[in-house]
Formats: sequence, C-alpha cells, structure tokens
Amino acid sequence: MKLKLLKNDETLDDLQLNGICIIQKREAFRFGVDAVLLANFAKVKSKMKVIDLCSGTGIIPFILAGKTNAEHITGIEIQKDMVDMAKRSACFNNMKQRLEFIHKDLSDLNFMNSLSKVDIVTVNPPYKLKNSGIVSKDDKNAIARHEICCTLEDVIKAAKSVLKDNGKLYMIHRPERIVDIMYIMRKYSIEPKLMRMVQPTINKAPNMVLIEGKNNGGKFLKWEAPLAIHRENGDYTEEINIIYGRNESDKNGNR
Amino acid sequence: MKLKLLKNDETLDDLQLNGICIIQKREAFRFGVDAVLLANFAKVKSKMKVIDLCSGTGIIPFILAGKTNAEHITGIEIQKDMVDMAKRSACFNNMKQRLEFIHKDLSDLNFMNSLSKVDIVTVNPPYKLKNSGIVSKDDKNAIARHEICCTLEDVIKAAKSVLKDNGKLYMIHRPERIVDIMYIMRKYSIEPKLMRMVQPTINKAPNMVLIEGKNNGGKFLKWEAPLAIHRENGDYTEEINIIYGRNESDKNGNR
Repeated sequence: MKLKLLKNDETLDDLQLNGICIIQKREAFRFGVDAVLLANFAKVKSKMKVIDLCSGTGIIPFILAGKTNAEHITGIEIQKDMVDMAKRSACFNNMKQRLEFIHKDLSDLNFMNSLSKVDIVTVNPPYKLKNSGIVSKDDKNAIARHEICCTLEDVIKAAKSVLKDNGKLYMIHRPERIVDIMYIMRKYSIEPKLMRMVQPTINKAPNMVLIEGKNNGGKFLKWEAPLAIHRENGDYTEEINIIYGRNESDKNGNR
Repeated sequence: MKLKLLKNDETLDDLQLNGICIIQKREAFRFGVDAVLLANFAKVKSKMKVIDLCSGTGIIPFILAGKTNAEHITGIEIQKDMVDMAKRSACFNNMKQRLEFIHKDLSDLNFMNSLSKVDIVTVNPPYKLKNSGIVSKDDKNAIARHEICCTLEDVIKAAKSVLKDNGKLYMIHRPERIVDIMYIMRKYSIEPKLMRMVQPTINKAPNMVLIEGKNNGGKFLKWEAPLAIHRENGDYTEEINIIYGRNESDKNGNR
C-alpha cells in the first residue's frame, strides 16, 4: 500500500486528530503552526460549506474535516503536485465524499464565479511581497511563501467571489501586512470583524495575526486576548497544547 | 494667586513631572491614562515642532514640554473654556514661550493650512461614533468622547494638512476603530508604521491602541509587544510606573 500511496520523497504524517494523516514532501514546504491555528480559529458549524484557498497539501481541509461537521470542504491550489498529494491523502483517510481538491489558479475569476457560494472561506496565503526578502531557490517553497502566483488582493477578490452574503473569511497572516489586509478587505466589502494577535510568548511582539471578515458585514471590530505559543520556559502554552490535542502524557514525551 | 488662576469649579493638578501642574474642571472631562500613554509613545526629538489636535486642557502638550526638548508645541481645541484653562496652565507653569493654545475647529482647513508645517502631530481624538452608545448629557464630555464636532477622517485630514513630508502622526484610539484608522490613514497617505496594543493585563484583550503614522511613508507596519496596564494582582505594571514617574516610595503611598 505504501508504494501506491507515497512517492519516495514524501512522508505520511499523523495529525493526531481522529487518525487523520496527510501526505507531505519530506524536504519541501510542510505545514506549520499557522495552518493549525487558522483551522482552529475558523468557526465552522454543522452542514456549512467551506472553500480553502492556497490549500497546499490540504492541511486546513483535513483539520476542519476532523474537527467540525462541515458538509463539504473544497481546497483550491495552484501547484499540481500539492493537489495530487491532497487527493491521495483524501483517499487514504476515506474522505473523498466531504473533501475535494482542485488544481486551479484562484485569480481565474471565471472559474471562481462558477463555484457554488459557500459559508466560509479559509486562507493561509503567501505572506511576503513578491520582491521582499530572499526568495528561496526552490520554486515550490517560494510560491507558498511569496506573492508570486497571487497577491493579497487576488486572494480577497477570490474569497469575495465565492462567499455567501454574510459568509465569513478566515485568514492568518503577518502583522506587518495588516494595513494592506484591512484596506483591501474593506475595499471589497468583507468587513474585518474579529482579530487575534499571535505572539511567540505573552510578552513579545506578535508575529502572526488571525482575522475574521464578514461579507457585507457592518463596521465593528472585536479583539480577542493575544494567543501565546510558548511559555517563558519554552514549553507550549496550555492553549496550544489543547489546539494540538496534546494531553499530559504527550507533553511528557510518552506519545 | 489662587483666585486669579482657578475658577471655583476647577482644580490644579500636579503632573509629577518637573513640577508641572494643569488646570482641569473638578466634575467634567479630566485627562486619563490614554493621554499619558500617547505622550510617552510619541517620539519627539530636540527642536521639533509639534501640533496636538483635540488638545482639551492641554495634557499632552504639557507632558511633552516636560519630557522632551520640543521647540514649540501648539494645542488646538474646539471647546473655548478648555483652551482658556490650558492658557492659564501655560501661564502658571511659565511655559508661554514653548506652548501655545488655539481655540479653533480642526476641520477648518483654511485655518489648518495657514499654520507652519510641523514634525509631529499628536491626537487623542473622540473615540466613539456620533450615534454609538449613550451620549453623556453634559455636552463638554460628549464632545471629548464622541465624534460630534469632528470625525476620525476630519482628524486625519487636519494632521495631513500640517505635517511635513515624513512627519509623524501619533494617535491613541480604541481597537474596534482600527479598520477605520488604517483605511483613512492610507487614503490620506499617512502610512501606519508602528502599532502597540494596550491591554488591561497581559492576558486580556486590548482596549486601546497606539499608532504611529508617517506622512508619505512607505508600506511596512512594525508591531511592538503589548503594553499591560495592570499586573494580575491589580497593581500597576513596572512600565506604567515608569511612565508615571512613580518610584518605590510612591508605590507604597508615601508620595
């Protein structure tokens, strides 16, 4: 079975969530804490339909499938080999009924407009501007991290095109892009409604931000208490342990 | 002397800063921690010229006069009796050379454009939308707290009209207005460059935000670690004690 499921450069990783596993490249872009935080921040209720943009190997759809009663989740991703991995993961987890992965460019608005409208859009987009910082030589990583194939505005336009009226957009991004995010969300009438800063520890400056926007929502932005990843002693905080589903014995290394 | 300086309904309050005192109404709007935080957040260097909008009784100009080597600070305020108090405070503190208070409406752009351009604008504007919440019956308090005489956009337009190129705008506001603030600042090319959330304690959601914007600045927003007002036990945090210039004996009530 392993021969058919996995290629040589791939691993099958257990999400520690109802036995769900996900296929990733051993050496290329692998999901991080940001995807996990976003999947936990999104308020997905029973029977909702969800689209995950910039879906990569499908980490957010798989977590949402495991944690919520979403009726259907569609992941859209521009990199063909990632979509291929996500499809094989769906097969392995017997989730082909609820999960669909599509190899498409989200900036193709003709395609986006052809989709059924959804209650929720999630997106963990490339964080960095196209020409900012060192672009990694491996194209796949660069595409996941830099705005090479899509800009923030493309992402928000794509979300707008598929959201129901009052549908919610959930995004995780870098704090330095918040002006862009708020400006562009308001431009497309997806009003930011809830923010939560994510900090390495409770006393440090934030390095990620979780945002909820509401399609055609009224103006009022609520803020949650910051989410700290680590305690001062380097351990994960209780909230992160809960999000990762770790219990006391896990924390002591007896997994 | 007290007869000439103070009216019956006024108090003379010691800022605990180089002996500076400020006149306030006993019962009406009195300065709060927000003004003190803003005056400490603003990076005012030697010989800079400053304008403080929505200046009230002049708390921010007086703190800046005490803590910095600003060459000149002008406070602009629409409520005549507050300007009158600020002028008497300037007299009392022998600061009429460095401090000027003007009774004007900041939305009078002809007037604003007639002023010399400055390095820094500070503003602790009315936080609440005109029709939000209960408007206090006392008009003076309502004007200080609600957008009755000026909107956020008026404030930012006024700042724009007096800022030098690359001059800085420092504002304190409520977190729920951040989308408005960012949208309007970018609209007028005062790019948000630095943010700091202010929280009641380190674990609670923010209830104020400090913002630095740069006139015609490039896009990049830096975030500082959150500023907590209180410790878990209700005492002020060390940072707040430093801002208020309290030492150990003050903290023990031996002021």
